[in-house]
Amino acid sequence: MALDQQVELVAGVFSRNEANSKVTGEKLFLDPSRVYATYEEMAAAEAALPADRRIDFVSIVTPNNAHFGPSRTFLEAGFHVVCDKPMTLTLEESEALVEVVERTGLVFALTHNYTGYPLVRHARHLFQSGQMGTVRKVLVEYLQDWLMEPQEKHGSKQAAWRTNPAESGIGGALGDIGTHALNLLEYITGDPVCEICADKSIFLPDRLLDEDVNALLRFEGGGKGVLTVSQVATGEENGLRLRVYASEGAITWSQENPNVLELARHGQPRQILTRGHAEYLSAEATAATRIPTGHPEGYLEGFANVYVGAVEAIRRHIAGDPMKTSEYRFPTVYDGLRGMQFIYSAVESANAGAAWVPMKVRKKSEE
Amino acid sequence: MALDQQVELVAGVFSRNEANSKVTGEKLFLDPSRVYATYEEMAAAEAALPADRRIDFVSIVTPNNAHFGPSRTFLEAGFHVVCDKPMTLTLEESEALVEVVERTGLVFALTHNYTGYPLVRHARHLFQSGQMGTVRKVLVEYLQDWLMEPQEKHGSKQAAWRTNPAESGIGGALGDIGTHALNLLEYITGDPVCEICADKSIFLPDRLLDEDVNALLRFEGGGKGVLTVSQVATGEENGLRLRVYASEGAITWSQENPNVLELARHGQPRQILTRGHAEYLSAEATAATRIPTGHPEGYLEGFANVYVGAVEAIRRHIAGDPMKTSEYRFPTVYDGLRGMQFIYSAVESANAGAAWVPMKVRKKSEE
Amino acid sequence: MALDQQVELVAGVFSRNEANSKVTGEKLFLDPSRVYATYEEMAAAEAALPADRRIDFVSIVTPNNAHFGPSRTFLEAGFHVVCDKPMTLTLEESEALVEVVERTGLVFALTHNYTGYPLVRHARHLFQSGQMGTVRKVLVEYLQDWLMEPQEKHGSKQAAWRTNPAESGIGGALGDIGTHALNLLEYITGDPVCEICADKSIFLPDRLLDEDVNALLRFEGGGKGVLTVSQVATGEENGLRLRVYASEGAITWSQENPNVLELARHGQPRQILTRGHAEYLSAEATAATRIPTGHPEGYLEGFANVYVGAVEAIRRHIAGDPMKTSEYRFPTVYDGLRGMQFIYSAVESANAGAAWVPMKVRKKSEE
Amino acid sequence: MALDQQVELVAGVFSRNEANSKVTGEKLFLDPSRVYATYEEMAAAEAALPADRRIDFVSIVTPNNAHFGPSRTFLEAGFHVVCDKPMTLTLEESEALVEVVERTGLVFALTHNYTGYPLVRHARHLFQSGQMGTVRKVLVEYLQDWLMEPQEKHGSKQAAWRTNPAESGIGGALGDIGTHALNLLEYITGDPVCEICADKSIFLPDRLLDEDVNALLRFEGGGKGVLTVSQVATGEENGLRLRVYASEGAITWSQENPNVLELARHGQPRQILTRGHAEYLSAEATAATRIPTGHPEGYLEGFANVYVGAVEAIRRHIAGDPMKTSEYRFPTVYDGLRGMQFIYSAVESANAGAAWVPMKVRKKSEE
Repeated sequence: MALDQQVELVAGVFSRNEANSKVTGEKLFLDPSRVYATYEEMAAAEAALPADRRIDFVSIVTPNNAHFGPSRTFLEAGFHVVCDKPMTLTLEESEALVEVVERTGLVFALTHNYTGYPLVRHARHLFQSGQMGTVRKVLVEYLQDWLMEPQEKHGSKQAAWRTNPAESGIGGALGDIGTHALNLLEYITGDPVCEICADKSIFLPDRLLDEDVNALLRFEGGGKGVLTVSQVATGEENGLRLRVYASEGAITWSQENPNVLELARHGQPRQILTRGHAEYLSAEATAATRIPTGHPEGYLEGFANVYVGAVEAIRRHIAGDPMKTSEYRFPTVYDGLRGMQFIYSAVESANAGAAWVPMKVRKKSEE
Repeated sequence: MALDQQVELVAGVFSRNEANSKVTGEKLFLDPSRVYATYEEMAAAEAALPADRRIDFVSIVTPNNAHFGPSRTFLEAGFHVVCDKPMTLTLEESEALVEVVERTGLVFALTHNYTGYPLVRHARHLFQSGQMGTVRKVLVEYLQDWLMEPQEKHGSKQAAWRTNPAESGIGGALGDIGTHALNLLEYITGDPVCEICADKSIFLPDRLLDEDVNALLRFEGGGKGVLTVSQVATGEENGLRLRVYASEGAITWSQENPNVLELARHGQPRQILTRGHAEYLSAEATAATRIPTGHPEGYLEGFANVYVGAVEAIRRHIAGDPMKTSEYRFPTVYDGLRGMQFIYSAVESANAGAAWVPMKVRKKSEE
Repeated sequence: MALDQQVELVAGVFSRNEANSKVTGEKLFLDPSRVYATYEEMAAAEAALPADRRIDFVSIVTPNNAHFGPSRTFLEAGFHVVCDKPMTLTLEESEALVEVVERTGLVFALTHNYTGYPLVRHARHLFQSGQMGTVRKVLVEYLQDWLMEPQEKHGSKQAAWRTNPAESGIGGALGDIGTHALNLLEYITGDPVCEICADKSIFLPDRLLDEDVNALLRFEGGGKGVLTVSQVATGEENGLRLRVYASEGAITWSQENPNVLELARHGQPRQILTRGHAEYLSAEATAATRIPTGHPEGYLEGFANVYVGAVEAIRRHIAGDPMKTSEYRFPTVYDGLRGMQFIYSAVESANAGAAWVPMKVRKKSEE
Repeated sequence: MALDQQVELVAGVFSRNEANSKVTGEKLFLDPSRVYATYEEMAAAEAALPADRRIDFVSIVTPNNAHFGPSRTFLEAGFHVVCDKPMTLTLEESEALVEVVERTGLVFALTHNYTGYPLVRHARHLFQSGQMGTVRKVLVEYLQDWLMEPQEKHGSKQAAWRTNPAESGIGGALGDIGTHALNLLEYITGDPVCEICADKSIFLPDRLLDEDVNALLRFEGGGKGVLTVSQVATGEENGLRLRVYASEGAITWSQENPNVLELARHGQPRQILTRGHAEYLSAEATAATRIPTGHPEGYLEGFANVYVGAVEAIRRHIAGDPMKTSEYRFPTVYDGLRGMQFIYSAVESANAGAAWVPMKVRKKSEE
């Protein structure tokens, strides 16, 4: 949010503990009267302020079990929402949230931040524009090793909630990183997964949620794929990598080296596309870039692009000219629902011994 | 064979067509009387020569349907055999060949050439020596794109027999490259696949055999994995790549850059091991290296190492001091049988809609 | 500045044209009364404000010929300064600026932003802590191609001033990127260049300043090196790369892939150090990192680290407890002077047909 | 030689010690009567054999001080010669050898083996065919670290002669690897170095010859360059790397990854050309390739291509239809002379404190 100076942080709840929340608010130079004890209090108090003084939107960056309540509450109070993924604790909550968003007509953005990278947007453009042909094979992986020690037993709050079903839901790695992998591949190819066969594993004692999942995918368009995620893959840091082999070409993108997109065509030299080249990149990619080629952009810029998109939609809504969901340049409540469907389908498959399970594909008319 | 000058080519059958065979023999500077029309003729004629004049072993480099007959015939005639993979056209033939090899006590080497790379041997050493701990996740892929055009319709002999079940057997990409992928991973980890769930695809019209397969794997030791192969993966050349994530470390090796082995350990800098460093590589790796570090070795040297191993065993046999199979430094008839079990299990799984199928693990006592 | 939310932009001059300046100020949500027509006006007006209302420091991001005047003016008015590099138009101006900074005792930070990358700081730590031994060979390069077309003839303001001696000074690529290369190598090794032999080239017609320079270096510690820079190196984007070969090890760092530092030691596997690993990186590196390993940081974070350092020094100064220059965690006025000495020495060498020219090494006592 | 089965080793001198030579000959399965004590004896004895029984050519793989004598002797005895580089111990010997080769009209091939790599040949094609425009900047490096320990004091014969001026001549790294670097760049660009400014260093005590050299280059065509070589560059193995930036494009090639050639053009995606693609590589590159793309070739295949070229010329000579030197597809006696000119010019420059020294460019008419 800070990066583009379009948004000013003016109010918030920063901890379940009110005193901690106050301290954080002070460090952030906030007006103490707008540092709240609970999200319910905040929603009510901000809604009571004059229109030109109250917040425009809220950003929800809490564990999964604290997504739905705040989202619904702020939406019902008339505020737009930007929320972390996975969207909710349960599939039912996601379905309920779709209803709230549709009814209120407010902006709801989900921070699948990897869609914000310029070369991810260019990859999407290559598929949408028909230059790649039909998808035949997708290999998507998201590999980390940060949970290969039982950090949750040694004071890590991040590890504690992510390994706790009460806070994370039924998915472990599936929810935390699997949803990113699914979102990335469907965002780029536009070809949804229609069936999944997922084999999940837990290697550390006392863990309750999946640490590692290998899944076979089938796509609506007839292609096949593999999705593999792990948080115990020794030596991996944040290895989200996507390869799509289509009839007319193939692309490779890796989050750890995000300024590069490889494009291969049969019988031709592989091409290395790099961020910032308006000469050959699509307008979508160029619009998502801040600095010249060769000066690396990273994780924060990708994240910021999701906020830039949300701010655009919020401004348009405030101006009385709201965008349609299909015009949104950021992941929506439907992407959030899709992620929850993925978690539930994968867990259902895994619990059946890695059997094939359909993944309902939302119809365009449903959006 | 040429590389190490331990073997001299002195006789052969070089074509199904006798005239072509003669022409090739002449180009190879062979004695015309030892250029034969059929393998049966060759086996009989060479066996009739005095012991110091006849061939020591035969090398079989024909399509899959011409592996079993020649192998059995030469073995029965008292000759050692080096044979291409997959070992035979059918699983039954492989089982029969195991019997012949065991009964004759002769050397049978299978050219899973990728086991010949020095850093593959070092990777195996790392697992065998216990430095890697328990295997948790294996990602093996073998991706090519050379069959994404219907080359078999345009005169390619290589494409013609590989896409023809009568010559290739029931596996397409599975047999041609999948067996390499399986062999490589089991060779390195020593942890056999015990269950497989394979989804196969054919994208080009008129093709009868699998072009692309994605499979989930389960290992005897409790780990999980993915095997993915394709001969229609746009832009891929000969992309055999293996990643193994184990409890104490992880390795990455890629056939297209074979002089490098990456070794990762949790919380430590990734290490780049390079061929030729006797200071830190195992004796097995060093023994398989010909030239100094930084001077790249490639495909031919790896292949040659299989021959070096076979020649060692053949010399020992001739000297009356035969090696045990467990001492062989090359893939054996049991690896060949294993490859056929893999093809049959994968096809069985795929034909059942990608269901889980056990892959019988041979007992050590069976070897 | 925005990234860390430690600084708020409250006043400025944004163009030589007052109307343009006003428009920009409005876009930045500034109080119109603090958007000024000239820097002289701004310095005087801000100085006239009450202490708690006026700016704390000024950031100078203008062409080289507009560095010295504003820097001196704001310093004389009692304001701290953050300034772009090269520090001034001429060597004489830099010498004069050193005098002003020393006399006023105010903070002066020079944005050699590449020193802000965490792994650059770790590389410096490796040398400072004695783990690398004696420097033997340094290869530093900074290669771009953005000036290989005459952009200055087609409306590019960036190209126009950089190719104009009246705005850039006597160095072209030397000043724009050569000073970065020199600064980076001396920052990391701590071993100053003492002699230089530079060969400069101009390939495009009508260009007046060096587009490309190759230089031999000799270091005070006895090592040797090469510095090569170009803005017409076809296909290069922002290729600042440093390799240092020392008696006990070698490091490689590349700006385009800044989250990685390679460390080699004779006879050992090369190590790949990655950003964010507090387990094995130095405290300096860890302090300069914002997000977890594997989530790439880029150019902006490096730049922000220079600001973080400047803000730290400014806060300390405001608090009445100023830091010593030797404690500064950012490039200083002495680095700026060093850069100008480099430009002048290189140009002197090149003008003498690429003869050896001493590069005066500042004594520690002079700082 | 073994790789292509065009040449059979039938005679030789394998050591200065006759007994050792005999032992080696036996290991190579040679006729003992053709294992000689000295090269003089061998030349005389072979020349005395009937034409269809004697050797066709000799391969000289000795230290530099044993190149000229054997080369001259065998040539004078009517035998073709393949010889290691640098061509001779002194420049005078090289000049004399040119005379012998020209007078006898026999084939003389110099094993600058790096010219044998298919993608090096394609790079040359790109320049020769005019697709690259004018050379502006060349960066060539050849970096190793194998002499950073005093191996010559610990029994290494390779280190002993290479650090001994009596056996190596006046160049250390310059002769051993610098000549390769020079040869590679001139082979590819066709644009000869016309001036050099070389700074050489010795870091280990007791060493007499250069271990490390940095040199500025100027080319006949107006471009500039840097050549840097080292045998004490910590962590480097056999790092011969070439980058050429020309007006219409740039190429990058690295010996340690020889199956890849990068081609960059301003404002276009970088292209990764890989060995074996007849669809887009030149005929010269395709002719120099043995195995399919993606199956790596290495050092030995490159070396073998020099032999293939020499054998072609020798066959033509034997057949009474000798090739012209300009038709030779391997480095010639003139390349050898050029290498010695390079060593002498670089040493002259370095001894003058790294002053500019002309490097006489041979006229085409001189060939």
